[in-house]
Amino acid sequence: MANKKIRGVYLVTDRPLCRMHSLAEVVRLAALGGVNLVQLREKETDSREFLELAKHLKEILRPFSIPLLINDRLDICLAAGANGVHLGQSDLPWQDARRILGKDAIIGLSLETKEDYHSLIKTDSHPGLDYLAVSPIFETNTKTNTKPAWGLEGLKWLRTQTKLPIVAIGGIKESNAKDVLDAGADSLAVVSAICSAKDPKLATEILSEKFH
Amino acid sequence: MANKKIRGVYLVTDRPLCRMHSLAEVVRLAALGGVNLVQLREKETDSREFLELAKHLKEILRPFSIPLLINDRLDICLAAGANGVHLGQSDLPWQDARRILGKDAIIGLSLETKEDYHSLIKTDSHPGLDYLAVSPIFETNTKTNTKPAWGLEGLKWLRTQTKLPIVAIGGIKESNAKDVLDAGADSLAVVSAICSAKDPKLATEILSEKFH
Repeated sequence: MANKKIRGVYLVTDRPLCRMHSLAEVVRLAALGGVNLVQLREKETDSREFLELAKHLKEILRPFSIPLLINDRLDICLAAGANGVHLGQSDLPWQDARRILGKDAIIGLSLETKEDYHSLIKTDSHPGLDYLAVSPIFETNTKTNTKPAWGLEGLKWLRTQTKLPIVAIGGIKESNAKDVLDAGADSLAVVSAICSAKDPKLATEILSEKFH
Repeated sequence: MANKKIRGVYLVTDRPLCRMHSLAEVVRLAALGGVNLVQLREKETDSREFLELAKHLKEILRPFSIPLLINDRLDICLAAGANGVHLGQSDLPWQDARRILGKDAIIGLSLETKEDYHSLIKTDSHPGLDYLAVSPIFETNTKTNTKPAWGLEGLKWLRTQTKLPIVAIGGIKESNAKDVLDAGADSLAVVSAICSAKDPKLATEILSEKFH
């Protein structure tokens, strides 16, 4: 059983951004570099290929006891034996995910706005989630159609509202990582900073050091 | 519990083809017309909306005890309390679906070629499936990128190979329905013949009569 501690560097995959190495190689190198969590995100892939990718990454991460999360697709998570799911605002409700995946699964939810947080706690003041993701913390080109960035002030605000671990994502790099942690994030989620790095292991190590 | 008997008219939904009525209305009218099974197929919809649609159709079909299947997405099936899934060749393997959904779920698989059938029985000579779909039986414009049509001869061949119920899909209409049944199909699956019909109830009744 992978632990549910959400702290450290969180890799969100993006195959088109893996230019220098294959996705599997990026994940292996990030694991060697000390990544805390990996989320497999695939938006255009058919279910069969998505499952094969998930199984392959799970195999790579198992010896490191690094959890693998699946973006959106609970069925891929179940079929691949992954450790949980990351849900966006248009994905299945977290309550369904918890019911279907069970209490040991890691379930995280993206918040795009303060209103998303208010709606979340309206139905349940202590939502059964393992983390909240502030998305995006900074403007970024990786995801399209995102709402305005939260910024450090937005992150600080959310920190005053919740005891759940907070994952920050969007435009995080070495130069701003410390500011994001100081503002209250427990985890730094990155896409291109690792996927597109010449040396994904080194890139992960550099971000990991910010936690020491 | 909906019964697993696969015989009769099988409606596969396609929202863009529902021009005269909403999807919900098409499904309600098809239920009144005696449809045996409904499959919700959505390819571009986000998970949340897909789930809402599935729950809505499930509600419409429950009083009729007509099973609702979900195309591809096991997680939508589980979250909506639908009765099973229809799997294509690029969807999750049926063994995973059976393990995740349990023995009461209806699980069907599309076969696009004779080779698909041979691969299927290679791993398990009695696959734990509730039906096989011959897709497409005739050329059609509804689905893109399909392989050459099976034709009546192909259907007759499959009938000699398997005792599993056979669903035929693709270009089925009143004029060829009897030929398809005579060639060995247990169920006639249609998309536009009901979705685009001026009177979906009547269209369903006309096809249902072919079974008498």
